[in-house]
Amino acid sequence: MNNSVSSCEMEPVSEQTRADSRVLRMGTDFRWPGVPVSEYKQSTEHWCGIARMSLVGEAGESTAFHVRYFEIAPGGFSSFEHHAHEHVVIVLRGRGQVQLGDSAHDIGFGDVVYVASHEPHQFRNQSAEPFGFVCIVDAQRDRPNVVNPP
Amino acid sequence: MNNSVSSCEMEPVSEQTRADSRVLRMGTDFRWPGVPVSEYKQSTEHWCGIARMSLVGEAGESTAFHVRYFEIAPGGFSSFEHHAHEHVVIVLRGRGQVQLGDSAHDIGFGDVVYVASHEPHQFRNQSAEPFGFVCIVDAQRDRPNVVNPP
Repeated sequence: MNNSVSSCEMEPVSEQTRADSRVLRMGTDFRWPGVPVSEYKQSTEHWCGIARMSLVGEAGESTAFHVRYFEIAPGGFSSFEHHAHEHVVIVLRGRGQVQLGDSAHDIGFGDVVYVASHEPHQFRNQSAEPFGFVCIVDAQRDRPNVVNPP
Repeated sequence: MNNSVSSCEMEPVSEQTRADSRVLRMGTDFRWPGVPVSEYKQSTEHWCGIARMSLVGEAGESTAFHVRYFEIAPGGFSSFEHHAHEHVVIVLRGRGQVQLGDSAHDIGFGDVVYVASHEPHQFRNQSAEPFGFVCIVDAQRDRPNVVNPP
């Protein structure tokens, strides 16, 4: 394992001044107008085919948590990694698989995943449609450690 | 305004020992098997027709946030209230309305609401179907203050 870059932590949106209340309406194809999409289409050793959108927490809010939407393209996968901070994932789109330690679980709309501290985990899309989920993390968190694929 | 009971803060699930990673699969009708449902069917002066489910944060997790699912029955509404802590809401089911200060907004699936600190807010369901949303809050938070309806 090492401290190499994780697909989930790249290019955070820069901080702004204090945020006002707002409604972010979801537009077509699970995108929110005004919310930038960071796409990582090239495959690397560790992750492949992931789009990342920051919904709340990196635009002047003072929440103790950040809310992001990740979408994994067909055939894509996130880093197999662990870290001290916990993850909460809620599936919004399609179907995929989460690896939690030695166990793989198929997940779909409305399923909620809690990833405990230092649990090695990975999200994969082996379906033919995009697999999208909200991921909530503590605002203050450590960097992931990438581990060998399961 | 006063510090009377809020529909969102009643009957928290008791703390348990450290939580393991888990997948909570959504069952039928937007319920998660094993997750207790607190139903508040009686109308009061302040809120009406709300079901509450604690998804993450009150069962031994050490996240800096709690994730709950609220469902408002047709004709129901939450307290019109404000508090120092911020809310993040993501709509999963049906359609409803959020009041943010003087402004009302129609919201539906995938829409994300950020409620700033001390913004008076209320959620309402004027549709014929249940209106359900995930609500994320800081684990450490103040109690709501109920204000007069908008």
